Amino acid sequence: MNKSRMEAFSDGVLAIIITIMVLELRTPEGHEWREVVRLWPVLLSYVISFLYVGIYWNSHHHLMLTVHRVSGGILWANLHLLFWLSLFPFVTGWAGESHFAAVPMSCYGFVALMCAVAYTILVRAIIRADVSNHLLADATGRDLKGNLSIAAYLVAIAAPFFGYPGVIVSGLLLTAVALMWLIPDRRIERVLAREGGASSKH
Amino acid sequence: MNKSRMEAFSDGVLAIIITIMVLELRTPEGHEWREVVRLWPVLLSYVISFLYVGIYWNSHHHLMLTVHRVSGGILWANLHLLFWLSLFPFVTGWAGESHFAAVPMSCYGFVALMCAVAYTILVRAIIRADVSNHLLADATGRDLKGNLSIAAYLVAIAAPFFGYPGVIVSGLLLTAVALMWLIPDRRIERVLAREGGASSKH
Amino acid sequence: MNKSRMEAFSDGVLAIIITIMVLELRTPEGHEWREVVRLWPVLLSYVISFLYVGIYWNSHHHLMLTVHRVSGGILWANLHLLFWLSLFPFVTGWAGESHFAAVPMSCYGFVALMCAVAYTILVRAIIRADVSNHLLADATGRDLKGNLSIAAYLVAIAAPFFGYPGVIVSGLLLTAVALMWLIPDRRIERVLAREGGASSKH
Amino acid sequence: MNKSRMEAFSDGVLAIIITIMVLELRTPEGHEWREVVRLWPVLLSYVISFLYVGIYWNSHHHLMLTVHRVSGGILWANLHLLFWLSLFPFVTGWAGESHFAAVPMSCYGFVALMCAVAYTILVRAIIRADVSNHLLADATGRDLKGNLSIAAYLVAIAAPFFGYPGVIVSGLLLTAVALMWLIPDRRIERVLAREGGASSKH
Repeated sequence: MNKSRMEAFSDGVLAIIITIMVLELRTPEGHEWREVVRLWPVLLSYVISFLYVGIYWNSHHHLMLTVHRVSGGILWANLHLLFWLSLFPFVTGWAGESHFAAVPMSCYGFVALMCAVAYTILVRAIIRADVSNHLLADATGRDLKGNLSIAAYLVAIAAPFFGYPGVIVSGLLLTAVALMWLIPDRRIERVLAREGGASSKH
Repeated sequence: MNKSRMEAFSDGVLAIIITIMVLELRTPEGHEWREVVRLWPVLLSYVISFLYVGIYWNSHHHLMLTVHRVSGGILWANLHLLFWLSLFPFVTGWAGESHFAAVPMSCYGFVALMCAVAYTILVRAIIRADVSNHLLADATGRDLKGNLSIAAYLVAIAAPFFGYPGVIVSGLLLTAVALMWLIPDRRIERVLAREGGASSKH
Repeated sequence: MNKSRMEAFSDGVLAIIITIMVLELRTPEGHEWREVVRLWPVLLSYVISFLYVGIYWNSHHHLMLTVHRVSGGILWANLHLLFWLSLFPFVTGWAGESHFAAVPMSCYGFVALMCAVAYTILVRAIIRADVSNHLLADATGRDLKGNLSIAAYLVAIAAPFFGYPGVIVSGLLLTAVALMWLIPDRRIERVLAREGGASSKH
Repeated sequence: MNKSRMEAFSDGVLAIIITIMVLELRTPEGHEWREVVRLWPVLLSYVISFLYVGIYWNSHHHLMLTVHRVSGGILWANLHLLFWLSLFPFVTGWAGESHFAAVPMSCYGFVALMCAVAYTILVRAIIRADVSNHLLADATGRDLKGNLSIAAYLVAIAAPFFGYPGVIVSGLLLTAVALMWLIPDRRIERVLAREGGASSKH
């Protein structure tokens, strides 16, 4: 199985996801400043989602560096992750256009949660396909950042049902998680660096 | 003729097909839970189509591993396959938005059938271009899964004309075929594995 | 200058052009057979445009095989070609939705003409950048097919102004040119084959 | 970190941005010549934006030739640039559909300015990641063209507030900057040519 073609396909899908989100920024009817002001919720949700997809692209890229053999399981786990990521344009547009109403915010949190779950499944599929890949197993062993994110997503899904302050909590949590992941995953880089051979191949 | 550029172009087209389908999930007007509930037929048809395009990408990838020389015939057979696959977003959106009405379901089945036919034509074009490619000829000689799929598609096209139960039969058959193909095509992998040289090139 | 990145970018743009045309096939409001029948002009113009873009992708690919050095001139001539090709989705949708009215048909012919002109400019830029590329100069020296196409496009632009029969002439000519080019450009292949060194690099 | 995958992702995003802008050319309702005439502002803004994105693709390509190591900083600076470029389809559609009204023109200038700023940040991130990259530092040391562009963008943002003549000044400036950059960045090519080793790698 050809790893580079799976990477190329994933890159293509991620590039399209990150770009078609901008189609949610519909051309305003009028041409006054208030049109731009009215656009801010859609713009804000676009910025956050751009960060999320950018982070997943970055993490995906790092993850693939540790893969030596693409099994059927990895392939389908990867498509499963792309499926949930492909729902970002939808929840982004809905959250923005509804001016961050409770249900769209909760759905946004749900999609973010399912992406995190799908990513974890992909990591497990990679470890299972290559038992010698203790690198990845080590690197992601005690996954504080991952667990924190999942906890934050769960709160972000539930909070909007407790009125307007809950929506704000939800938005802040989703933004905080994105910012937390802006720092690239040094865990894998560190372990890769320790064994020179693996990194020199790339 | 350059095989890698044909692969890259096909990957690009497949990545776009699988991703623009999500544009059929239009931003709901309101922001209540019932909007999400109302969305389920579009979501369901999206999931099934995502599976179909994912399966074709996977099969296409396996198929290309056996190609050593891209002839004009292979190139046009490939574009023909991409043409029918490109109709998936249309029938997906229509089937979902019509809440699985008879005519859209029948059209969906027809597009699925034509993709299978186009795939068969591509396989034949590959075998014809390389008479020494008895690998592929062997591997796809007795194509039970392929024949079952075509029979299922034919029933899925006809069934919706026999009222509501027919539509359900059609939907179940289309889903069953997708699930059946989730298991990657081990026939080609097995034959490739038998002759070590071919697989080590990839 | 990096030829493979120019190819990758062109492939990406062509893959998107060929795929977003399907977005012109809008989901019908109803779900009767007559909706499918009503769709035939859009479907027909989609098929023809799919052929055109497929042919350009194929020719572009052959052309790039003869390029050894990408100059600034080639790069901009290539972008110029992509610009005119990017107008195909627009004229395709318009010609189809207007049921092949005179003005949209004429515009379609104009875009087809400009693509041919842009392609010729690209060929000239490649020959100019590499004076030793007498291969390409030879191969395209007496370009009967190219001249026939341009003549056909000119008639296809003018004919719609002579009433309904003119529109049909225009449609038939545009289809005939597409079919004529379905046969890949053996001129370049033949010349490349004559000198083994060049083709073995690809 | 893998430079080619960052290039592939950027190429994908740029190819999508340049192509989805054509979706702003909506299929006209009627089919008379006056529909084409009515389209001219959208077409004009499409042509200018096509030039801008083409120029950024070209410059990005040249810039990447000087990169030997992709740091986290380069990766995020690159995503930041892609973010601002991804707003081109929005401002292009708005400027065109509003027939170049003051606010959309000013927003167009702002997006053009932010792209230039993001590009500068990317150049700085590349220089910082590789202190030995004095090539790039030299080549972009006295950046007359860059400074001129930023001055032009600032005027193009402010001018539309001084009535209709200001809008025309703004449009002319934005067009002039695009034409000025059509000439590829020979500064980097020249410095790369001076040291043969670097260019022979590509």
